[in-house]
Amino acid sequence: MKFRNMLLLAAGVAAASGTFAQQAQPKPETLIKWRQSAYQVLAWNGARIKANVEGQYNKDEVVRAANSTAAIANSGLGALFAPGTEQGKGWHDTTVKPELFKDPKKVGELAGNFVREANELAKVAATGDQAAVKAQFGNLGKTCKACHDEFKNKD
Amino acid sequence: MKFRNMLLLAAGVAAASGTFAQQAQPKPETLIKWRQSAYQVLAWNGARIKANVEGQYNKDEVVRAANSTAAIANSGLGALFAPGTEQGKGWHDTTVKPELFKDPKKVGELAGNFVREANELAKVAATGDQAAVKAQFGNLGKTCKACHDEFKNKD
Repeated sequence: MKFRNMLLLAAGVAAASGTFAQQAQPKPETLIKWRQSAYQVLAWNGARIKANVEGQYNKDEVVRAANSTAAIANSGLGALFAPGTEQGKGWHDTTVKPELFKDPKKVGELAGNFVREANELAKVAATGDQAAVKAQFGNLGKTCKACHDEFKNKD
Repeated sequence: MKFRNMLLLAAGVAAASGTFAQQAQPKPETLIKWRQSAYQVLAWNGARIKANVEGQYNKDEVVRAANSTAAIANSGLGALFAPGTEQGKGWHDTTVKPELFKDPKKVGELAGNFVREANELAKVAATGDQAAVKAQFGNLGKTCKACHDEFKNKD
């Protein structure tokens, strides 16, 4: 399953999404807006989890945030990096480096790490163990940073 | 579980989120940006599901999109409508009507309908039955429209 996700993500980045083949393919600007939005939802969930592991812990909220994170990680974000979206403006100019579109193997590896740790966080969140969630949240954060360092320009 | 979600959502709208109590509460503009982003991710997932039920059907993609939709529906979006976010600019000026902040009972009812139908869509998507997904996607869309008609200004 993990390897399959990695493949799906890599394939999504390497090739155009076939989903919209029968219909008008969304404009590159729309895809960029959607991907910028997806990462903002991840940021929201991350902020909530951070607040919980550093302060008063609400298991239900952490579960919701972790499940949402995992579902987005598993949602096939690669399709939002379709050819044609190398440059352009969604909510703002894309901050993706051109290298992302040229190295599907590396992207697949980093994306696979992200998916794996996000799914693990959802499992750990279900236990309600604050310390374990804090540790796993750290592991997830490392996979975010690794990809940003490689493929994201500074805002 | 459904009623509990409804209560959580209603509570999230009626009262400020307590999550960030120990830390700096995110700025209203940040909360507005996050909620606008969350609805864009729902729009992305909706567009994918629509393309699938109207064209060539890819069960895996529909499952991913439906699971992401359900996870966001269950994620506690009400917290993004905290007091102080009645007006303001996230990615753009908020399109939420002032009435949303004054009628938690109605909001809870409409939000509960949305959560229920999103969770049902995730279940139906898992069956891979294109016609059933199309029908349930229609049921979900009605709950989106009901809330937009009541509480969302035109863009």
